[in-house]
Amino acid sequence: MYTLYYSPGAASMLPHLLLIEAQAPYELRPVDLAAGGQRDPEYLKLNPNGVVPTLLVNEAPYYEAAALAQLIAENHPEAALAPPLGTARRATYLQWMTHLANTLQPAYRLWFYPGDAGAVDPDAVKAAARQKIETIWERIDALLSDGRAYFVGDGPTALDFYALMLMRWSRNMPRPATEWPHLKAFAERMKARPSWKTLYEREGLTEWA
Amino acid sequence: MYTLYYSPGAASMLPHLLLIEAQAPYELRPVDLAAGGQRDPEYLKLNPNGVVPTLLVNEAPYYEAAALAQLIAENHPEAALAPPLGTARRATYLQWMTHLANTLQPAYRLWFYPGDAGAVDPDAVKAAARQKIETIWERIDALLSDGRAYFVGDGPTALDFYALMLMRWSRNMPRPATEWPHLKAFAERMKARPSWKTLYEREGLTEWA
Repeated sequence: MYTLYYSPGAASMLPHLLLIEAQAPYELRPVDLAAGGQRDPEYLKLNPNGVVPTLLVNEAPYYEAAALAQLIAENHPEAALAPPLGTARRATYLQWMTHLANTLQPAYRLWFYPGDAGAVDPDAVKAAARQKIETIWERIDALLSDGRAYFVGDGPTALDFYALMLMRWSRNMPRPATEWPHLKAFAERMKARPSWKTLYEREGLTEWA
Repeated sequence: MYTLYYSPGAASMLPHLLLIEAQAPYELRPVDLAAGGQRDPEYLKLNPNGVVPTLLVNEAPYYEAAALAQLIAENHPEAALAPPLGTARRATYLQWMTHLANTLQPAYRLWFYPGDAGAVDPDAVKAAARQKIETIWERIDALLSDGRAYFVGDGPTALDFYALMLMRWSRNMPRPATEWPHLKAFAERMKARPSWKTLYEREGLTEWA
């Protein structure tokens, strides 16, 4: 039913985690980013943005990691990976899914690829991106400081897996997300789930295990 | 039930249009952006990003225009402003809602506030933003070229109103979105809806009517 085009540790990690959590059957297809596989004409037909992930659902291609995560959560309600419609938790979930997609993930793009902003001073772009990223960690750490285990509700939703992936991307930054105490505890809680181990095995990951 | 903090023509226009379309009761509260109302400490308690919109739902504040649009659509299923869960149209809807929030809306931010990127060369940032924006219009125009009236399905969803708002923002750019023929027809179709006239009256808008 699902085919995931992925690269180890890239944004494809988010839908991959959700597929594992939902116990959905899927096939993996690697995209070799170092070799430019994401710009292969055949791949660009599936995903004109030239990035991973792309998810085939019943053979039709879709992109945008945050959207794919929401889609998998919706298609597998028994896994409880999203709050029910019409609840206050749902409003918080939608807000943060969009905020991470809109703000935190693009800031990483500027951190890793500062040339994308069209600027001649990549260091300034990186500094601004770093500040944005750390501001969001500060805010999420404050959110988690009330003792909640997850963003919303008693179990993890797509949103928690999204935050976990974005935390992982900060591991070699000057101030990794795990420097914030509540975020550190949150990451440990999420990484203790069997899905994390399965993900690492299937993607061949080692760092930040 | 709803209170919308807005500024005429800003991103608050999206949830505002959805509230009108859903025939939901709401109250409007203006935020004077020119006077810095978005940085007022009382407002920052509702929306720490210091931007509009903020939507109070049963007194609780939420932000991110794209999330608020999805929320209003979900809370008023009778208005059919989002495709049903589990359909192929739903997957396309989620992909584009995220893509516009993730890519097109942030590119506008760089176009209007190039200093945000931390670069010393705002003109280069604007040029890169413009290119991103036009690439997306090109792609949406191609999508609409198959004769469809809306992004997905037979009636407009939150996604169509989102695209319409973002098209409006291009009106003073070197190449406005209406230069693409299918986008032009799409905008005319959307602007013929009574909600557009109501929005203009309530926000006191005149340009791009």
